[in-house]
Amino acid sequence: MAEPVFKRLALLGIGLIGSSVARIAKAQGDIAAEIVVNARTQKTLDRVVELGFADRVEPDPAKAVEGADCVMLCAPVGAFAALAEAIGPHLAHGAVLTDVGSTKQSVIRDVGPFVPSGVHFVPAHPLAGTEHSGPDSGFTTLFQGRWTLLTPPPGTDEAAIEKVAELWRRCGSMVERMEPGHHDRVLAIVSHLPHFLAFTICGTADDLAEETRREVTNFAASGFRDFTRIAASDPVMWRDIFLNNREALLEMLARFMEDAQAMARAIRWGDAAYIEDKVERGRKIRRSLIELKQA
Amino acid sequence: MAEPVFKRLALLGIGLIGSSVARIAKAQGDIAAEIVVNARTQKTLDRVVELGFADRVEPDPAKAVEGADCVMLCAPVGAFAALAEAIGPHLAHGAVLTDVGSTKQSVIRDVGPFVPSGVHFVPAHPLAGTEHSGPDSGFTTLFQGRWTLLTPPPGTDEAAIEKVAELWRRCGSMVERMEPGHHDRVLAIVSHLPHFLAFTICGTADDLAEETRREVTNFAASGFRDFTRIAASDPVMWRDIFLNNREALLEMLARFMEDAQAMARAIRWGDAAYIEDKVERGRKIRRSLIELKQA
Repeated sequence: MAEPVFKRLALLGIGLIGSSVARIAKAQGDIAAEIVVNARTQKTLDRVVELGFADRVEPDPAKAVEGADCVMLCAPVGAFAALAEAIGPHLAHGAVLTDVGSTKQSVIRDVGPFVPSGVHFVPAHPLAGTEHSGPDSGFTTLFQGRWTLLTPPPGTDEAAIEKVAELWRRCGSMVERMEPGHHDRVLAIVSHLPHFLAFTICGTADDLAEETRREVTNFAASGFRDFTRIAASDPVMWRDIFLNNREALLEMLARFMEDAQAMARAIRWGDAAYIEDKVERGRKIRRSLIELKQA
Repeated sequence: MAEPVFKRLALLGIGLIGSSVARIAKAQGDIAAEIVVNARTQKTLDRVVELGFADRVEPDPAKAVEGADCVMLCAPVGAFAALAEAIGPHLAHGAVLTDVGSTKQSVIRDVGPFVPSGVHFVPAHPLAGTEHSGPDSGFTTLFQGRWTLLTPPPGTDEAAIEKVAELWRRCGSMVERMEPGHHDRVLAIVSHLPHFLAFTICGTADDLAEETRREVTNFAASGFRDFTRIAASDPVMWRDIFLNNREALLEMLARFMEDAQAMARAIRWGDAAYIEDKVERGRKIRRSLIELKQA
């Protein structure tokens, strides 16, 4: 077995991503020699003990990070500023601080100021997930064949970046570096806007008159079923993503709204060629995805 | 084995739905004693012969329906008016004419005038599908546990309605009757609008600058992947659905756009409670679907 990448990995937050990393680390032994888990509630910590993937649980984040050579923030991104402030003074010299948040400019803004000198801050985002959440939802194959994007600020220690990259490769992920602002724009269109639309259409359906609403759930064809699966994701996590990638999301939404209005106009005026062309584009993008094996 | 519901079933159009019905009829023997298939191109007819689920193929729709006691229109709904005009004079007295189109008011508008007296017109819509199309895409379990909605005009012969219902039950489907206008509104929100949004977001992504677009396909997270699956559906079929359920779709889109703008405003102004409430609704609708086993 390869030498573990880290001696002690502290996971702050233990939902789908955190508990998947913990399960992989526990199963493989080549990621961290010791796994410490911190969570907000005692109930979650008790469940983590039952699930058996942590070497130690710790209710106080400041204590959880003490002596850890890798600290990974796995809470919703809206909690990062307070977490960073709480743990900053307790981070070990030479430690790597990383995260798994879906927005990267906000994480750098919120966490950066609390990172002491001598601690290496390597923001990261594994592009993997399901609609489930909590410590029970993780599984060891979650990151297989998926990308993890690293967005280290300029000047970050290359050895620290490489350690985080190696952690994700050992989790089964492919790794690439990206500029944080670019990351936020790409994620706005591939993930945040689709979730925005899915949540919204569920609300629109829920507002329909009683009889129609009953039939919406009764007769949900495949289109709506897929949407509700997306929309079943964790509310607090998504609230935080929307609020913390506000600008990129609102820009992509504005573009989308223009396109939707143009399509609506084509439907109203019977412009068959326009509609067919737009529908054909879906197939084209779909084919690209299949070729890249992300589908 | 039960007596077949029909002596001769003529399928006009042989894509996902038509070829699934043919496969089931062929495999079970209790739906029709003979299966005649008509398609627009010789290439498709040749493929149907190779696939072996038809007793006879026939390039002329007027000839295909001769002597059939059940005729099922399985082409895109935009082709129905011309098809109905072509076959009307050739329909056998006492025959049942039905269809599988996703819009029902337009079908009654387009087909109704060409139905001779003594022929029973029973519009139907099986709520089942995948993103695949063509005669190769059908399979025998497509309708298992799914709903088929019948929207017969007032005064339709009850025995004819019951025969169509029985055909769909033998295909594995559950059957319910619905008023055509109500059908079109329900489908607009559960199926047509989700597809509209999926096609549109693929176009929006495709319009992004070259570098971002490459990354859109490369880093498609789960949200976008699910959207592109929906968007991979047949362009002509969907063009026709959008054009033929114009009013209900544009009404549902207008409601959706209001809700999307309200959500965008909440994001811009940081109204966390509003966002969380809307996201929570997705979960609620999702739970309803799971309870009804449509998920």
